[in-house]
Amino acid sequence: MAERKKVAVIMGSGSDAATMQAAIGQLEALNIAYEAHVMSAHRSPQRAADFASGAREQGFGVIIAAAGKAAHLAGVLAAHTTLPVVGVPIRSQDLGGMDALLSTVQMPSGVPVATVAIDGAKNAALLAAQILAVTDADLAKRLSELKLRMEADVLAQDRALFDSSN
Amino acid sequence: MAERKKVAVIMGSGSDAATMQAAIGQLEALNIAYEAHVMSAHRSPQRAADFASGAREQGFGVIIAAAGKAAHLAGVLAAHTTLPVVGVPIRSQDLGGMDALLSTVQMPSGVPVATVAIDGAKNAALLAAQILAVTDADLAKRLSELKLRMEADVLAQDRALFDSSN
Amino acid sequence: MAERKKVAVIMGSGSDAATMQAAIGQLEALNIAYEAHVMSAHRSPQRAADFASGAREQGFGVIIAAAGKAAHLAGVLAAHTTLPVVGVPIRSQDLGGMDALLSTVQMPSGVPVATVAIDGAKNAALLAAQILAVTDADLAKRLSELKLRMEADVLAQDRALFDSSN
Amino acid sequence: MAERKKVAVIMGSGSDAATMQAAIGQLEALNIAYEAHVMSAHRSPQRAADFASGAREQGFGVIIAAAGKAAHLAGVLAAHTTLPVVGVPIRSQDLGGMDALLSTVQMPSGVPVATVAIDGAKNAALLAAQILAVTDADLAKRLSELKLRMEADVLAQDRALFDSSN
Amino acid sequence: MAERKKVAVIMGSGSDAATMQAAIGQLEALNIAYEAHVMSAHRSPQRAADFASGAREQGFGVIIAAAGKAAHLAGVLAAHTTLPVVGVPIRSQDLGGMDALLSTVQMPSGVPVATVAIDGAKNAALLAAQILAVTDADLAKRLSELKLRMEADVLAQDRALFDSSN
Amino acid sequence: MAERKKVAVIMGSGSDAATMQAAIGQLEALNIAYEAHVMSAHRSPQRAADFASGAREQGFGVIIAAAGKAAHLAGVLAAHTTLPVVGVPIRSQDLGGMDALLSTVQMPSGVPVATVAIDGAKNAALLAAQILAVTDADLAKRLSELKLRMEADVLAQDRALFDSSN
Amino acid sequence: MAERKKVAVIMGSGSDAATMQAAIGQLEALNIAYEAHVMSAHRSPQRAADFASGAREQGFGVIIAAAGKAAHLAGVLAAHTTLPVVGVPIRSQDLGGMDALLSTVQMPSGVPVATVAIDGAKNAALLAAQILAVTDADLAKRLSELKLRMEADVLAQDRALFDSSN
Amino acid sequence: MAERKKVAVIMGSGSDAATMQAAIGQLEALNIAYEAHVMSAHRSPQRAADFASGAREQGFGVIIAAAGKAAHLAGVLAAHTTLPVVGVPIRSQDLGGMDALLSTVQMPSGVPVATVAIDGAKNAALLAAQILAVTDADLAKRLSELKLRMEADVLAQDRALFDSSN
Repeated sequence: MAERKKVAVIMGSGSDAATMQAAIGQLEALNIAYEAHVMSAHRSPQRAADFASGAREQGFGVIIAAAGKAAHLAGVLAAHTTLPVVGVPIRSQDLGGMDALLSTVQMPSGVPVATVAIDGAKNAALLAAQILAVTDADLAKRLSELKLRMEADVLAQDRALFDSSN
Repeated sequence: MAERKKVAVIMGSGSDAATMQAAIGQLEALNIAYEAHVMSAHRSPQRAADFASGAREQGFGVIIAAAGKAAHLAGVLAAHTTLPVVGVPIRSQDLGGMDALLSTVQMPSGVPVATVAIDGAKNAALLAAQILAVTDADLAKRLSELKLRMEADVLAQDRALFDSSN
Repeated sequence: MAERKKVAVIMGSGSDAATMQAAIGQLEALNIAYEAHVMSAHRSPQRAADFASGAREQGFGVIIAAAGKAAHLAGVLAAHTTLPVVGVPIRSQDLGGMDALLSTVQMPSGVPVATVAIDGAKNAALLAAQILAVTDADLAKRLSELKLRMEADVLAQDRALFDSSN
Repeated sequence: MAERKKVAVIMGSGSDAATMQAAIGQLEALNIAYEAHVMSAHRSPQRAADFASGAREQGFGVIIAAAGKAAHLAGVLAAHTTLPVVGVPIRSQDLGGMDALLSTVQMPSGVPVATVAIDGAKNAALLAAQILAVTDADLAKRLSELKLRMEADVLAQDRALFDSSN
Repeated sequence: MAERKKVAVIMGSGSDAATMQAAIGQLEALNIAYEAHVMSAHRSPQRAADFASGAREQGFGVIIAAAGKAAHLAGVLAAHTTLPVVGVPIRSQDLGGMDALLSTVQMPSGVPVATVAIDGAKNAALLAAQILAVTDADLAKRLSELKLRMEADVLAQDRALFDSSN
Repeated sequence: MAERKKVAVIMGSGSDAATMQAAIGQLEALNIAYEAHVMSAHRSPQRAADFASGAREQGFGVIIAAAGKAAHLAGVLAAHTTLPVVGVPIRSQDLGGMDALLSTVQMPSGVPVATVAIDGAKNAALLAAQILAVTDADLAKRLSELKLRMEADVLAQDRALFDSSN
Repeated sequence: MAERKKVAVIMGSGSDAATMQAAIGQLEALNIAYEAHVMSAHRSPQRAADFASGAREQGFGVIIAAAGKAAHLAGVLAAHTTLPVVGVPIRSQDLGGMDALLSTVQMPSGVPVATVAIDGAKNAALLAAQILAVTDADLAKRLSELKLRMEADVLAQDRALFDSSN
Repeated sequence: MAERKKVAVIMGSGSDAATMQAAIGQLEALNIAYEAHVMSAHRSPQRAADFASGAREQGFGVIIAAAGKAAHLAGVLAAHTTLPVVGVPIRSQDLGGMDALLSTVQMPSGVPVATVAIDGAKNAALLAAQILAVTDADLAKRLSELKLRMEADVLAQDRALFDSSN
């Protein structure tokens, strides 16, 4: 079986690192190799283009891209690769992330971005894992176990609710 | 090498079929096997749950789910599988698809939906193909060729613009 | 006369409990029996489906469902029961609850959710009480008395305004 | 067993009648008695207030209220009764019904309106039926049968999709 | 010349008093008589209707009405009087006052509400003063003087800007 | 008693004339003198400023201003007069009039605009009439009669509904 | 005096040509040299980057960029040049151009896009002309004349209004 | 070569000074002469009109205008000059700056405003610099150097990310 691909976690600014830590933590918990980088669609466009163009050859399987406001990063990366690009719209103070959401998800025909929720860093990592798990039974099993733990966690919250109300 | 996985194209209503035809056409153009079904998160919930629960075993690699208004279909399918689920928010007359977009993309932590643009049926198919192509060099090559054809098409449009203005 | 039905107060996450306390307090003030549970449309979907499917037989008359973001909980419960389901969209930081509102209220034809205001926990309980009071003269009388007390409270606020400005 | 309550279908303008016909048709299909009226929160406020004040005594169990733009009708009726009021926001040309939706659903604490989707006339009738069915086993059975027919209808759409693609 | 009419400052809840203090302060600064009251379109509807119905006879010339969320107060008062009603949408935490704005301004044909900005209490008082000043030369003169002071204040801010940057 | 003031109906473009005809018709029906003009805040700003500056002396009592998109007309006129200015946001194709609404209603402190609904030309005329009627008993009486006719019209619609359903 | 710079009119798709014809017509009317091209931020990203990188040397003074949906074109061009880039958000069916507007205007710090109204093709050309006219007295004079003609046109519309109402 | 033109930084209120300091700092860093003023479209309209009318003769090349809510300032200045006007929508508490954005960007045909992001003060200064640099090779060179420093800064953030994760 082929070696598991890496995930790239690209963010448009160093200030996105706090939010994106949840993606990195989830990838680590699933034992998925990753590289995290700051690259800007607008301030370092060539580097972003070069990275995306070479990502498949570098052993990446999925690119996660997080950016705020007029969030072009995911789309710009997607323009230069045929790898799936997962977009994370970052919330900002003025419009609550609606600008980043529309800039990320409303991609024109031909170049999709797999968009998750505003600030949805953890879900971006899970989606990347699901993508890798399509042909990776071991990873799929870990995701199934995670699903069971989430269900158990909801049950625990339910019991806690009951206990606190008694 | 393992056989290529199938793609499921699930829509919440028969009235979504016209929009989703673009997804089916794109899958066929890429020679990706698919099954199309109408299933409703609200009117046939058990069937939707059963389908998603068994989808991986049935040989599916990606599920595309299209629905309008309070579009729960993609999320409900994602709740029952660890396969990547691609959500297509369908436009409606009143709010232009903003309701379907938010209902599809703003998934809570733990259960991602890979959301594409409103009525983005073709991009959903391309994203599904990109996901399958992570470990499928042949499909990746076809996607690269498609990218080149899109670029050539833009150049042709550019020349047509020039010709018409002369 | 038949025994008064119970109200189920279901929330999508333990973090919704603080907001939903206002519903529980109102139910208690009206002497309406209830059960509160954490169930998730996405993380414990089967349990949610099973609960809704059996709710009428378990003696419930109304289900209140509270969830945030892509709030599918009310709709998913409504898919599995013919009891009236009251949806409470929960406010979040990014879009102020607009996502939860649209995900809850814009239900497609066939499966309604009786949606109240964002974070409208108290009103959800009052609506549940109104529903039970359709055939329960005693409860209807209590609701009438509550209406009178609300009116008196407005008058008291009016007098306080006058006093403070004199 | 007590006689089944009637449903009032109130609309703010004669121009809403076309949309609300779907509610009336659904009530008739379920054999639920109803009265339909045009009353305006702004142009005939006293009549609206009087109707709501006396509705319980007149044998009504649920009031459905449909209005567009700054849709105050449902709220004004709810102010004068303890019966459950179901609000139907009516779509208009400029803001697509967002104004009517917010005016109907964002009711302040103390006076809930059970809001359904924009132009959700049929769902308003179904919600009214669910409310009456809380203590009406016969009507509950009809609603269960309707749910089964909706599920069958989805299956038929699914088969039609398959047939048309073969 | 007839005695100057009074202005009514009606708010839907005692919690609006802090915001509406700016209206009261402006009315006092212009020497306009007023009465401030808490009345609710939903919790004390009859009192609101009675007040509006009798307002002209009671010597009022303008009614200012402030409310939040599904803000029906201004519209309900306007339904019962031919006096001009000035609506002040009150900001809330979730939707920033968009709900109150649309509920106040989007009045259907026949019953206008003169809507000012979200939380625009001071402007509501100025608009009331402008309305009274249509036939009141003395008040018109005071408003002209106020306009000059506002202009002088802008000039002073301009000088302060210059001073601070030197 | 002083002669009744005139109403100015100013529109930002000749293309607004069709919408504003409803204002003119209503003013004529109420026997209120008016002048209609096309003036642009951006293309003929000096003329707009001059008109507003001299409007009171010219015998105007109210200025109605209608404009679309970034609708500055009402605000610019209000900057140059102490007469009440009624703003009518005009609907456009892209954002449905939300841009014109916010540009008209969200006036900063000191310079109010009495905003009516999007395309609310008739209500603008009624509001202007209400303003003039504050000190004009004859006009107030006509407005009361109009209110009665509106109520009668709703009753007629109600009867028509009943007749058509029998 | 240096020769007047050219204006580039770049559109993301051949389907934008109809809308952008208004920009081209305005440039021609002002005797400003231009080149029109179709280039896509996503489908021909390298060509777009190359064009922007070389635009100043090619004699361009301003770049106009028009795109719809997640409109990255203007931002991507701005990333590769220090020339001013004027962005035209193109309207689409679903969200009315709000997505294109936010994607174009909400640029992060460091890389501005001079955004005009949705479908504001003519204004984009005028803005480009104003930019060139900063140091071009002849062009400035033509723009002043255009301003006078616009004012005269408003006056003509005003007279036409008067004539039609007499 | 002609002397470099000055930039005017106009703000609608002294309270905008804190936000606009970023524009002033950027202009100073680029050695561009400027004048900062408080002028209001509504409270000191004549002064704003006079300033804009004379700005070109006073040696200004670009006008930056910042305002919040119904932000008419940029449009009003643009009405009186053929210089390019850069609009900065200022964020406010209620609607997050959406009102200022639409009021600034949605200018009707004939009078463009070059709009930057909400609170985009620094970008406004950069855009002004780009406009001046069209015919100013020295300033263009400084902007190119700034672009390189921005790119270097992104690289430094990237390294810092790597360092912190090792």
